[in-house]
Amino acid sequence: VTTIAFIGLGTMGAPMARNLLAAGFDVVGYNRSPARTEAFAAGGGRAAGSVADAVAAADIVITMLPDSPDVTAVLSEPGGVIASARPGTLVIDMSTIRPDVARAVAAAATEHGLRFLDAPVSGGEQGAIDGALSVMVGGAPEDVAAARPVLDAVGTTIVHVGPAGSGQTVKAANQLIVAGTIELVAEALTFLSAHGVDLAAAVEVLGGGLAGSTVLQRKGPAMLARNFAPGFRVELHHKDLGIFGDAAREAGVVAPLGASVAALMASLKAQGGGALDHSALLLLVEQLSGRGGTLPPAK
Amino acid sequence: VTTIAFIGLGTMGAPMARNLLAAGFDVVGYNRSPARTEAFAAGGGRAAGSVADAVAAADIVITMLPDSPDVTAVLSEPGGVIASARPGTLVIDMSTIRPDVARAVAAAATEHGLRFLDAPVSGGEQGAIDGALSVMVGGAPEDVAAARPVLDAVGTTIVHVGPAGSGQTVKAANQLIVAGTIELVAEALTFLSAHGVDLAAAVEVLGGGLAGSTVLQRKGPAMLARNFAPGFRVELHHKDLGIFGDAAREAGVVAPLGASVAALMASLKAQGGGALDHSALLLLVEQLSGRGGTLPPAK
Amino acid sequence: VTTIAFIGLGTMGAPMARNLLAAGFDVVGYNRSPARTEAFAAGGGRAAGSVADAVAAADIVITMLPDSPDVTAVLSEPGGVIASARPGTLVIDMSTIRPDVARAVAAAATEHGLRFLDAPVSGGEQGAIDGALSVMVGGAPEDVAAARPVLDAVGTTIVHVGPAGSGQTVKAANQLIVAGTIELVAEALTFLSAHGVDLAAAVEVLGGGLAGSTVLQRKGPAMLARNFAPGFRVELHHKDLGIFGDAAREAGVVAPLGASVAALMASLKAQGGGALDHSALLLLVEQLSGRGGTLPPAK
Amino acid sequence: VTTIAFIGLGTMGAPMARNLLAAGFDVVGYNRSPARTEAFAAGGGRAAGSVADAVAAADIVITMLPDSPDVTAVLSEPGGVIASARPGTLVIDMSTIRPDVARAVAAAATEHGLRFLDAPVSGGEQGAIDGALSVMVGGAPEDVAAARPVLDAVGTTIVHVGPAGSGQTVKAANQLIVAGTIELVAEALTFLSAHGVDLAAAVEVLGGGLAGSTVLQRKGPAMLARNFAPGFRVELHHKDLGIFGDAAREAGVVAPLGASVAALMASLKAQGGGALDHSALLLLVEQLSGRGGTLPPAK
Repeated sequence: VTTIAFIGLGTMGAPMARNLLAAGFDVVGYNRSPARTEAFAAGGGRAAGSVADAVAAADIVITMLPDSPDVTAVLSEPGGVIASARPGTLVIDMSTIRPDVARAVAAAATEHGLRFLDAPVSGGEQGAIDGALSVMVGGAPEDVAAARPVLDAVGTTIVHVGPAGSGQTVKAANQLIVAGTIELVAEALTFLSAHGVDLAAAVEVLGGGLAGSTVLQRKGPAMLARNFAPGFRVELHHKDLGIFGDAAREAGVVAPLGASVAALMASLKAQGGGALDHSALLLLVEQLSGRGGTLPPAK
Repeated sequence: VTTIAFIGLGTMGAPMARNLLAAGFDVVGYNRSPARTEAFAAGGGRAAGSVADAVAAADIVITMLPDSPDVTAVLSEPGGVIASARPGTLVIDMSTIRPDVARAVAAAATEHGLRFLDAPVSGGEQGAIDGALSVMVGGAPEDVAAARPVLDAVGTTIVHVGPAGSGQTVKAANQLIVAGTIELVAEALTFLSAHGVDLAAAVEVLGGGLAGSTVLQRKGPAMLARNFAPGFRVELHHKDLGIFGDAAREAGVVAPLGASVAALMASLKAQGGGALDHSALLLLVEQLSGRGGTLPPAK
Repeated sequence: VTTIAFIGLGTMGAPMARNLLAAGFDVVGYNRSPARTEAFAAGGGRAAGSVADAVAAADIVITMLPDSPDVTAVLSEPGGVIASARPGTLVIDMSTIRPDVARAVAAAATEHGLRFLDAPVSGGEQGAIDGALSVMVGGAPEDVAAARPVLDAVGTTIVHVGPAGSGQTVKAANQLIVAGTIELVAEALTFLSAHGVDLAAAVEVLGGGLAGSTVLQRKGPAMLARNFAPGFRVELHHKDLGIFGDAAREAGVVAPLGASVAALMASLKAQGGGALDHSALLLLVEQLSGRGGTLPPAK
Repeated sequence: VTTIAFIGLGTMGAPMARNLLAAGFDVVGYNRSPARTEAFAAGGGRAAGSVADAVAAADIVITMLPDSPDVTAVLSEPGGVIASARPGTLVIDMSTIRPDVARAVAAAATEHGLRFLDAPVSGGEQGAIDGALSVMVGGAPEDVAAARPVLDAVGTTIVHVGPAGSGQTVKAANQLIVAGTIELVAEALTFLSAHGVDLAAAVEVLGGGLAGSTVLQRKGPAMLARNFAPGFRVELHHKDLGIFGDAAREAGVVAPLGASVAALMASLKAQGGGALDHSALLLLVEQLSGRGGTLPPAK
């Protein structure tokens, strides 16, 4: 049976690791805060006391971490994945990080005889729980093939999009579209509300035509109900739009709507809304329009 | 049998009128350029020589015209609908026009003993041909009920969204979301292309997650194939975003992405792309990014 | 001596009319609210009870009114300037209105045997009091020549910029630059404050280089002192940016910064800041940046 | 006599070093490409063969380099300023770099017993030649006092704006305002041209009122003459707006016009205009407006 080391048992990582267990893999979990490692062990997984312990006997290493520096540290520090894993181990980083950092750690891993895929996901906590994530994979075709049984246990749409770093590039584009679509829906709802239109009826008819989107379908009802509990937090989306912006600038790509929605997400965070769901962009549009958006007090 | 006068037999109007014929209504068509009226008659409809002729014996009048001034003229000029229709006639304007103009003609029609609905559509030429339009209806509930058999013959999603003018307000919001979503997809594709990602694979995985939209599904393949034949023309969408912008400003609603995409659509038109499909926003993003977008020469 | 009818004795009009008196002209004043007419008479002017009375014996008519519809009404209504002035009278509209409306009233005036100039001003209440306005004049050269002695009594920079309507076009461009420059200064000050820089020293050095502007010089100290008493009100600048936006759209001109600052000014008004000085854009940037901008409560 | 080591004898550095010579200082120059060092020696300066040689006996070290990594390298590499200068040497970096990098090199220099000021300049090549630069200085007051005789030899406005890094922060704000003001003028000129206004007359009257700016005065004539030879290159301003954007994002400051003009400058560079003067933003506005802006071919 394939042994998987799973590093990072947070909101996304914990249910993903459980789905791997449920699919019959031998999973060794590690998390920096021990409580999460213990919770994983209580659920039937094996617990490791360090990254080195977790990866020493693994066939596959999965990392699911908050940001680029975390991934660089876990892979490259003394006692990290690169120093501790056996030659030929397949490392799959499923975090959302900078494409250039993904390429750098891919190069470092390869240089030390490991194989590496960047495989960030879309679908949120619910998708992680349901094993229904979309996975955008960058790397060598043979490594993607080797990873497929594992990825199939956590996701339903697994697509190989190009060489190392490509998974992160597609994820950045995904985050651009998601943020932008939420903002468009927020602008539309504020506009319709200001004109006295029946919002529920409007959302129904908008969803049936060319304006329809997964955002409208999944986020629309909560926005109408003014429920901004995450879901996906503003501060994370702010981080992701920073990744998009830097990668766009580096490539000379001009994205006017991307720049505009990044500024709005930054404002939401700056005004104290970092822990709200990203659909709270609605509150910002209402504030700008003088329509009583009650933003949380600035920190 | 219900007699319907259908004014405006253009790209959208002609197939809609044919679908009404096919549903068993008695349809009298009129178009300013006689060739289109004759084509309608050749297809089994009845032809009228003037607006007055068309509406004189009608139970229901449908107008499907290019812009606000056209609707005002056809309804309010001497020999127009208001002057010529019988008391109690139900007038359904399915054009996309300004909400304030819709309210004004609704008031004028009501004052003269007619009934009025604004019922703009979404779904494009193909939706008109297939009788699969989405219809957003503003007006009195009893008039919406009376119109339903007729609207069911041209559309599949018929939603009453509020009082007079509300249909146009929702249509304006629809056009905001559609334009914005096309632009987001255009920015994402240019970004992915600049980074060497496999675009077809990327579109597949983006469509499977929270970034999915009807725009991505219906317009994505043509954008990848660089086919910008309309579809829905830039110059019409430019007009519609003008309607949105004016109505937002009037209500004090601030829509940063709406303002930004309106400027981009205006640029596409100003540079000579008015007759292209609105998905040609891709060409503009490529131009801005120095990536060889071959825009048509400025007029 | 030349007789001037002065219609509109508001914040700007009253001191301008007084300067004409002081320059030795015979000035007949009229204002819709009689108190302002009486105040003008108390200061040595002649008072008229109606537009018709004021203009009947005038050589020159000056209008200084809030907005386009006011100018259209005062010129074209029964008892208005066109109906009441003698043939050959020179009408100078110094209001800030839409260029297309200026061209329309110019045409109407000319058709009735009058001469017409659009001559909006820049310089604010203080400039009006000091007789130091800048005047941008559109119309026929010989009419500009005839108007010059009058304009010299209210302004120091009098420039003929083109045919009828051109004065208003230049004024619209002026308002774009002024609003945009205030916003740039607001963004710079918020940025500098967030980074702990000495603002007064920064403003001094910024003003000495390529970043220097009349806005920085005249508005900077009040912005540092957080004094947002008008000056020039947000609601008027909002009106003016609407004129710019419509005229730009009509001509196919794409102005990204113009669109962006118009949205910000609209937000300031929508949030209840309409009566503040336009330099209150600083409060909006602070709000967006979570830096305690205390905006007035939304109306 | 005070000995100054001057590192970086480029377009700006060369005339600045010559002005120090002319003011009676003993100046040792060094440039990576020897031709520039030789040219300086031919003009009466002393030439050094390495950074270490240049700084070994200097009282003051001035660096004038292209970008952040250059400054970090020249200061911190083996054989660099920190390793080679005598304790107590005053290092003045006059390059335009990231504020956080300025703070980092300040800390590194201080730790090694040196004194450090960040003192970027505004005024361009002409200002450097004329010794008329504006200098925004960050650092300790006593070091600013010690530097003043030197700075007075190259500039006319020398302002101490705060602690280490503050000079760079103010320079970033300066670059925001300059880019934004150029863009506003470009939008205004395109708007006026589209409406057939006399541009020279318009520029005259705009300059006389609240829309006046140093940009309009110094750049306006060349823009009207369509002369886009630098001056200050687009690619450098693009770099500087990147510094502003990163520092704003880091501090949570939301700058909508800053973000918008950064995208426009990026587009100008991406389309091949990197070597033009920054006033070539006019060409981009014309392109967007379909008014025949002949952009250089994309690289």
